[in-house]
Amino acid sequence: MTGKFISLEGGEGSGKSTAIVCIQRWLDAENIDYIMTREPGGTVLAEEIRGLILASRDEAVDDMTELLLMFAARAQHMSQKIRPALEQGLWVISDRFIDSSFVYQGRARGGDTEKLNTLTEWVVGDNKPDATLLLDVPVDIGMQRVADRKNADRLDKESIEFHEKVRQGFLEQADLEPERIKVIDASQPLEQVSAQIVTQLDALKTAWKRGV
Amino acid sequence: MTGKFISLEGGEGSGKSTAIVCIQRWLDAENIDYIMTREPGGTVLAEEIRGLILASRDEAVDDMTELLLMFAARAQHMSQKIRPALEQGLWVISDRFIDSSFVYQGRARGGDTEKLNTLTEWVVGDNKPDATLLLDVPVDIGMQRVADRKNADRLDKESIEFHEKVRQGFLEQADLEPERIKVIDASQPLEQVSAQIVTQLDALKTAWKRGV
Repeated sequence: MTGKFISLEGGEGSGKSTAIVCIQRWLDAENIDYIMTREPGGTVLAEEIRGLILASRDEAVDDMTELLLMFAARAQHMSQKIRPALEQGLWVISDRFIDSSFVYQGRARGGDTEKLNTLTEWVVGDNKPDATLLLDVPVDIGMQRVADRKNADRLDKESIEFHEKVRQGFLEQADLEPERIKVIDASQPLEQVSAQIVTQLDALKTAWKRGV
Repeated sequence: MTGKFISLEGGEGSGKSTAIVCIQRWLDAENIDYIMTREPGGTVLAEEIRGLILASRDEAVDDMTELLLMFAARAQHMSQKIRPALEQGLWVISDRFIDSSFVYQGRARGGDTEKLNTLTEWVVGDNKPDATLLLDVPVDIGMQRVADRKNADRLDKESIEFHEKVRQGFLEQADLEPERIKVIDASQPLEQVSAQIVTQLDALKTAWKRGV
């Protein structure tokens, strides 16, 4: 039996790191074999591509360059890590996946959804996540959480307006695919966010057991 | 007036380095302002992507990953270097360009020509080379030339059979676009190869002056 594929999405400061710990505890408690991974990245080469994407640099990075680098990393991640793990029956939990591309390279930057659909068809095909947990948080709360971090990367330096577009972009993605994308209210205290995540995971496991 | 864009193509050991020197001498003698560049590469970021593509590594590189990395580098090269130079009226001479993708990621590896056409449309658009010089050499002669080199990269390690496919692939490209792609017999001694290149460049310049 193939494993289940769950992606975790959300803007800056939405609490993904804490959510990952919560998901890992749930998987361990459920005795489910899994791998944790992330995008862009997930393999040695894909992490090297991630390094190129996130580096601060004097050279302007063309939007098309960034889009193709993202999907190059994803092609490597899918073929070398995600598909083999799913075929072994492992669950795969990915910190960010396709929805981040549709938001960061698409909706929030006026990118071309048609190109994103084409690349997703080529690279991901039938291996879309079985479920996606979207951590939704108002931009001011997210930004406050980020302010504590020491190292900002290129994407962190974007403006508040951009982060607002990112938030709305993720919510639009969730509106398009409500069955796959579960919105978590991540503005709440950490304990309550974790409780929402566990509730979603329990419900997904029950539904998948029933073969839904 | 926009500059002219010439690409140079050919398999391993076809004598591209020598041809580049010949082309530079001709451009200098004609008092034409130009830039020399190469693919994959041509900008700092694109050269970093080149480094990822050509590195020897334990991790298997998915064909789709390589294809998308090539076009990511090309998108950066086009937007940051080639288009700006052409718009300034400079001639651009590129050591390898799209035909190498159609051959190395396409014909020689059974790759998907439709994907190559789509990516070329997205990334290159109307900026295809005005002319391409294809250095054609039988595989055994090319391989003999390569044998003298000290450092072999990943592509150099491919088999003779692969190099034969590469040669045929380039000739098929030339058959498809005979107006753009000029085949140079590169099996001849260097002086005669250089003479052929100069003849082609003189003819191109004359034709372009006439507005052909």
